Amino acid sequence: MKLLRVGTAGAERPALLDAEGILRDLSGVVADVDGALLADEAALDRVRAAADAGELPALDAAGLRFGSPLGRIGKIVCIGLNYHDHARETGAEPPAEPVVFMKAPDTVVGPHDTVLVPRGSVKTDWEVELAVVIGRTARYLESAEEGLAHVAGYAVAHDVSEREFQIERGGTWDKGKNCETFNPLGPWLVTADEVPDPQRLSLKLWVNGELKQDGTTAEQIFSVGEVVRYLSQVMTLYPGDVINTGTPAGVAMGEPEPKPYLRAGDVVELEIEGLGRQRQEFKNA
Amino acid sequence: MKLLRVGTAGAERPALLDAEGILRDLSGVVADVDGALLADEAALDRVRAAADAGELPALDAAGLRFGSPLGRIGKIVCIGLNYHDHARETGAEPPAEPVVFMKAPDTVVGPHDTVLVPRGSVKTDWEVELAVVIGRTARYLESAEEGLAHVAGYAVAHDVSEREFQIERGGTWDKGKNCETFNPLGPWLVTADEVPDPQRLSLKLWVNGELKQDGTTAEQIFSVGEVVRYLSQVMTLYPGDVINTGTPAGVAMGEPEPKPYLRAGDVVELEIEGLGRQRQEFKNA
Repeated sequence: MKLLRVGTAGAERPALLDAEGILRDLSGVVADVDGALLADEAALDRVRAAADAGELPALDAAGLRFGSPLGRIGKIVCIGLNYHDHARETGAEPPAEPVVFMKAPDTVVGPHDTVLVPRGSVKTDWEVELAVVIGRTARYLESAEEGLAHVAGYAVAHDVSEREFQIERGGTWDKGKNCETFNPLGPWLVTADEVPDPQRLSLKLWVNGELKQDGTTAEQIFSVGEVVRYLSQVMTLYPGDVINTGTPAGVAMGEPEPKPYLRAGDVVELEIEGLGRQRQEFKNA
Repeated sequence: MKLLRVGTAGAERPALLDAEGILRDLSGVVADVDGALLADEAALDRVRAAADAGELPALDAAGLRFGSPLGRIGKIVCIGLNYHDHARETGAEPPAEPVVFMKAPDTVVGPHDTVLVPRGSVKTDWEVELAVVIGRTARYLESAEEGLAHVAGYAVAHDVSEREFQIERGGTWDKGKNCETFNPLGPWLVTADEVPDPQRLSLKLWVNGELKQDGTTAEQIFSVGEVVRYLSQVMTLYPGDVINTGTPAGVAMGEPEPKPYLRAGDVVELEIEGLGRQRQEFKNA
């Protein structure tokens, strides 16, 4: 199942995109849906075509948009340096234990929303990531298998990062990870039954049409199940919590000088196999 | 005004403790209040007596409890090493910019709730902190004065910390700050008009009756207004967000070996001038 949220900004409702490409309302507000969503045949046609192509349009013509597939997120826990190829490009040793940092749920925007380059930023960077959504409360789990059994599903996340704030300002990474709009999520949440092996997904990211990241979750140092097990030792994970599981090689920070950090006008597109596609235009805050 | 939330666990309702020590319901559910809260004269008497003494009891006899004064928190941003005396005891240089880390809102419990020592923990530590509650959306503020004008009020926070998870496991501090029940908050939110100078508050913490922390916010390296201004450059602060502004000297980590880290059975009490008192018993998770 592909679960998403569609509607006017701030009033998105839960919906399901079924195997035939039909968008089904899950909010129970049938009258509203008939009037506002399902009656918009042009929008629905675009959704069907986009579903066939593995992506979704912004639907802005009808005043509709795709929000984050999760309406309410308790916390977002992020794993740093979790790909062998990304650790190499940053010059870091592969960590002995998962590196953990956090993003506030208020950084989440829809998959096609504008992303803001913070004022004073000269090192805004991209990171395509596999987001894991927790389905059952996880406390002191004993194995990676048990960890995987607590996952409700998967989505594409863009873990936008300001490297100067993150690394050169003292303290922890959180400072460069929590700028407004820094976590596009979606377009949909794909339930775990449709992702038989989360360690065999390709991840891609383009900047202005140029392929920058072309990785696979097979390169993850700590698997999805192991990350859930590990985190459950130091915190409790609740249904709806999100884990951003790290990014593969190919970020701006890893390129030679002058590094091509993001600026207003840049367009970033992201895709994970089976999980759909995002597209964001960057603007100045 | 002192704003709090009282009720049975998970069903606390907003209430106000007025200058006469009368607890007034703010939920608008008058019938419920008459039946469940205000009719409990014994409980109310205890609230009045506790208000006179500057503290609040747990009210457990009536099945009532004091929850966190905030029912829904967007994010908790924490400032590390923000007291001159605490930086000295940990052997750290005073930071040039605020050190930032995060706690998930799900770590918040009521001021009298049990705190859990995580499994495998040998370094669970205490930290009394002035919590700042944001009242207006703060983005790119220009001065500490402007920062202070975005504060709705203040509360006591206990920033419970597991030092091994925080410091010896790689990555950022978040790992030792997000264990279940690690952020008692309350008993109440005191509105900013009742705290004329947040840089002149005494903070105290006792472990099993022994005074361990006895500090003042005058020792803060970055003032409340400056912290709000600074954070607003790297993230957007929303109404209801909480900032834990750091702890003064006197934590277990700062004592000579063997350091007296917390264990099941220990009782911690905390107090900030004008903001009330907390009491937690520690148990094993």
